[in-house]
Amino acid sequence: MADETLFQLLHTEVVAAAYGGGRGSGDEGQRTGLTVLEGMGFRVGQGLAERLPRGALVFREELDTIKFLCRDLWGAVFRKQTDNLRTNHQGTYILQDDNFPFLTQMAWGQQYLEEAPKFLAFTCGLLRGTLSALGIESSVTASVASLPVCKFQVVIQKA
Amino acid sequence: MADETLFQLLHTEVVAAAYGGGRGSGDEGQRTGLTVLEGMGFRVGQGLAERLPRGALVFREELDTIKFLCRDLWGAVFRKQTDNLRTNHQGTYILQDDNFPFLTQMAWGQQYLEEAPKFLAFTCGLLRGTLSALGIESSVTASVASLPVCKFQVVIQKA
Repeated sequence: MADETLFQLLHTEVVAAAYGGGRGSGDEGQRTGLTVLEGMGFRVGQGLAERLPRGALVFREELDTIKFLCRDLWGAVFRKQTDNLRTNHQGTYILQDDNFPFLTQMAWGQQYLEEAPKFLAFTCGLLRGTLSALGIESSVTASVASLPVCKFQVVIQKA
Repeated sequence: MADETLFQLLHTEVVAAAYGGGRGSGDEGQRTGLTVLEGMGFRVGQGLAERLPRGALVFREELDTIKFLCRDLWGAVFRKQTDNLRTNHQGTYILQDDNFPFLTQMAWGQQYLEEAPKFLAFTCGLLRGTLSALGIESSVTASVASLPVCKFQVVIQKA
């Protein structure tokens, strides 16, 4: 049994539910759906981080925390690491996944590009929630130029 | 990172969402919430079963299929097997989990027993959906006599 697909299947259902039943139509519904998904991701990220052994929570530098997301968080959720990490060394980080699992299913049709945001909102929240539990407030957005490549931009909120 | 908790955290969010935002209040809302969760479980179960290698889908006897649920499905979803399986040899099966993960969090308070059904609906659907994809139509209900022990009753629909 391919148990790594379990999370993906449930995520698909979650996205469908967030946009189902008359919700998610129109710009207002779109925003509500994204907010709901982002919030769910945030709380799941918090929960994951809170279950870490205490030692793992102490990172010397901000970059170490971001690397933890790329390696450990991505590993736990997607069974791989991100493919690239860039930073401007001023609190902005770009995490790139060249084959983002939640987008793989739709990669055959570029015409579905406008559908992509609903498959990214949960993960934006997941990153933000994990960072929040690690003591770092941030804003996270995602962009897709070409399916299934996805970039998550993390901007650290300076205290 | 405890990645087996990922699915559980997301399930918790799904339950909360099914009952959130004014939905899920009153008997009608309760039923709607349960139906939504059961439907999500059904489709996830179907998806899991459809991703199985073809060979695994051929079971000689009904009981083999049920044992597959107890061992492989439970293994993939909950990282363990069910603790007990009973049957009346007439198409009714009782799958018992003595420490059902979705109930573990609330096991300390028997006063929350009435909250239990919302944490069982998804898994009822999961069983029904997996069986459906394996060619067996069924109805699945769950009952809790004492937290966190849970019994799932599978009744096979005879053709």
